[in-house]
Amino acid sequence: MSATATSQRVFNFSAGPAVMPVSVLRELQEELIEFPGAGSSLMELSHRGQVFVDVLHDAQDTIRSLYGISDDYEVLFLQGGAALQFSMIPANLIRGNDKTAQYLVTGSWGKKAVGEARKEGKVEVLYDAKESGYNHVPSSGDYAASDDAAYLYYCSNETIQGVQFAEEPSCPAGVPLICDASSDILSRPLDIKKYGLLYACAQKNAGPAGVTVVIIRKDLLDHAPDNLAGYLTYKNHAENDSEWNTPPTFAIWALGKVAHWLADDIGGLEAMQKLNERKAKLLYDSIDANSGFYAGHARRDCRSRMNVTFNLPSDELLNKFVKEAATHDLASLKGHRSIGGIRASIYNAMPIEGAETLAKFMNDFAAKNG
Amino acid sequence: MSATATSQRVFNFSAGPAVMPVSVLRELQEELIEFPGAGSSLMELSHRGQVFVDVLHDAQDTIRSLYGISDDYEVLFLQGGAALQFSMIPANLIRGNDKTAQYLVTGSWGKKAVGEARKEGKVEVLYDAKESGYNHVPSSGDYAASDDAAYLYYCSNETIQGVQFAEEPSCPAGVPLICDASSDILSRPLDIKKYGLLYACAQKNAGPAGVTVVIIRKDLLDHAPDNLAGYLTYKNHAENDSEWNTPPTFAIWALGKVAHWLADDIGGLEAMQKLNERKAKLLYDSIDANSGFYAGHARRDCRSRMNVTFNLPSDELLNKFVKEAATHDLASLKGHRSIGGIRASIYNAMPIEGAETLAKFMNDFAAKNG
Repeated sequence: MSATATSQRVFNFSAGPAVMPVSVLRELQEELIEFPGAGSSLMELSHRGQVFVDVLHDAQDTIRSLYGISDDYEVLFLQGGAALQFSMIPANLIRGNDKTAQYLVTGSWGKKAVGEARKEGKVEVLYDAKESGYNHVPSSGDYAASDDAAYLYYCSNETIQGVQFAEEPSCPAGVPLICDASSDILSRPLDIKKYGLLYACAQKNAGPAGVTVVIIRKDLLDHAPDNLAGYLTYKNHAENDSEWNTPPTFAIWALGKVAHWLADDIGGLEAMQKLNERKAKLLYDSIDANSGFYAGHARRDCRSRMNVTFNLPSDELLNKFVKEAATHDLASLKGHRSIGGIRASIYNAMPIEGAETLAKFMNDFAAKNG
Repeated sequence: MSATATSQRVFNFSAGPAVMPVSVLRELQEELIEFPGAGSSLMELSHRGQVFVDVLHDAQDTIRSLYGISDDYEVLFLQGGAALQFSMIPANLIRGNDKTAQYLVTGSWGKKAVGEARKEGKVEVLYDAKESGYNHVPSSGDYAASDDAAYLYYCSNETIQGVQFAEEPSCPAGVPLICDASSDILSRPLDIKKYGLLYACAQKNAGPAGVTVVIIRKDLLDHAPDNLAGYLTYKNHAENDSEWNTPPTFAIWALGKVAHWLADDIGGLEAMQKLNERKAKLLYDSIDANSGFYAGHARRDCRSRMNVTFNLPSDELLNKFVKEAATHDLASLKGHRSIGGIRASIYNAMPIEGAETLAKFMNDFAAKNG
């Protein structure tokens, strides 16, 4: 077992909820019963009291500072995960009006988002990579976005298939670009000015399940139809600083600590990106060095830095791989039930030693079984 | 400081998020980094893995067993708090049909629920205690519920005003009774068979903020209109055992521990009710013994066992009360900004010593300042 994990901890390649920084878990543990100076657990404190409000603002400020987010944007902490965003986005932006929302579908999550959007208004799928088994993302020449669309929507990283946009898809000026960044938020620098709205559930790169980060340009707050459910109305959350109702206080506290770990311990998003690229390279190099044995799912130029997906020559070998990996403290490697194979999720908090251990195991396993 | 609190902890009378059992906080702390046998924190584990699924089922089973809930009901763990339930209930049960939902309004939360319901369909307010300043709940003769209503809705305990239904309001046979039990869930036995749907956010009596318990009779799952947002459709959550999307795993884990504390340490809901009545009696006795000094908000027969609300002769004395109470480790006593005064929330996890300490302080304060 590597010295970077604690005695009993394994390298956890779960696709989400997923590995968190050990130093964050240690801090949460230390402060769990008595938040410093508060005489109570953070979980027991009113969300409107100064102690929690400071925690909330600190988490917002740290995310703002990591991305360099301007005052043109709100940073909201909501509940309901990406699944509720699939509905909230079209409910706020196309319900009750004549505009069309345009979608790029590059995997399972984009497909689900389209299903929910169709319930709210006019939707057009500009590109769907289904026929390739969702192994790539489109180039700018592959689709034609309209100048007058309500928005252009995409998912920057598809966790199930392991395909990722290397940069933002092209989007007409004046059309809000909307991104589901649930599985690669905070994994690399982004120019937020390019987005109308970018959101992510926390449980992959940003913290525990139960909080969703929504970064929304302020002009988009004014499009919600009358009579939209209060919780679904972004403006309510923005006007009340994410306290329109009681927010998930523990999850926000943990999210703030993860953001601080990124800023202070890792050194920011550029440093994080370099680390993530090193981890991904270790695993993809092992796939490529054993290309007769391992078959990567994603096209090479669209490979995800977060979820490395590949298959083995047979189900028998696949099961043997998972079983033997577990004896090396390499856990949660089974691919999603919808596509099978192996999926190694190497989010921000996966230490480089985890990727090294897995890459070595992959090479050894291929040598013995190839 | 009482021996039942740890060295630095205060008696926390916050209305929510609120005090949790210290033994639950200790267990969470102990198991935070490595869930026993899992090699990871519970927060890092897939919601679909056996470890978390067992945690989820254990929490459901413990709540089922505490209330004696039959298989005619689902026990769901959702996100979005009571605020999202205000919309989900009418969206599932009156949107797109001709039925009328009937509401009893006995305080701020019932009023908010009506506001959201009106967005979804036909709503009738059968009783509104507004003119009394929400100081009581209606008797069965005070309103006439219809036989063909979609449902009859009430809030069993209004936290802001401190009024509580001693038992279920009368409801015509065949009409589903729906209850917002956010602030008194698990505080006393209930006959769940009387309800169509009973729900509660966790952060008062049941755990940390971020999870909402919904106990719903199965026949009510089939009323949702086509095209209702997926997250808002109860049936989706029921058919997927609260894993239609990623649930708030940490909050569910904590909720399960609170339910076990109730069942195993307290001895069940009858024992909890007795303790809660003892705590409430201590404070109301102190109000009544100093009735020229303290003015209780609720009518005597409608007094809440969860939130004790009262005022002092002047703002000056009110501020002095809060300030001096803090020096006795009595925290978060200020009333809600909408009605002022003092609010002492004495949820399940408030130890009897907290109520004793506060009652003694109240008597002493009245003697010195009355």
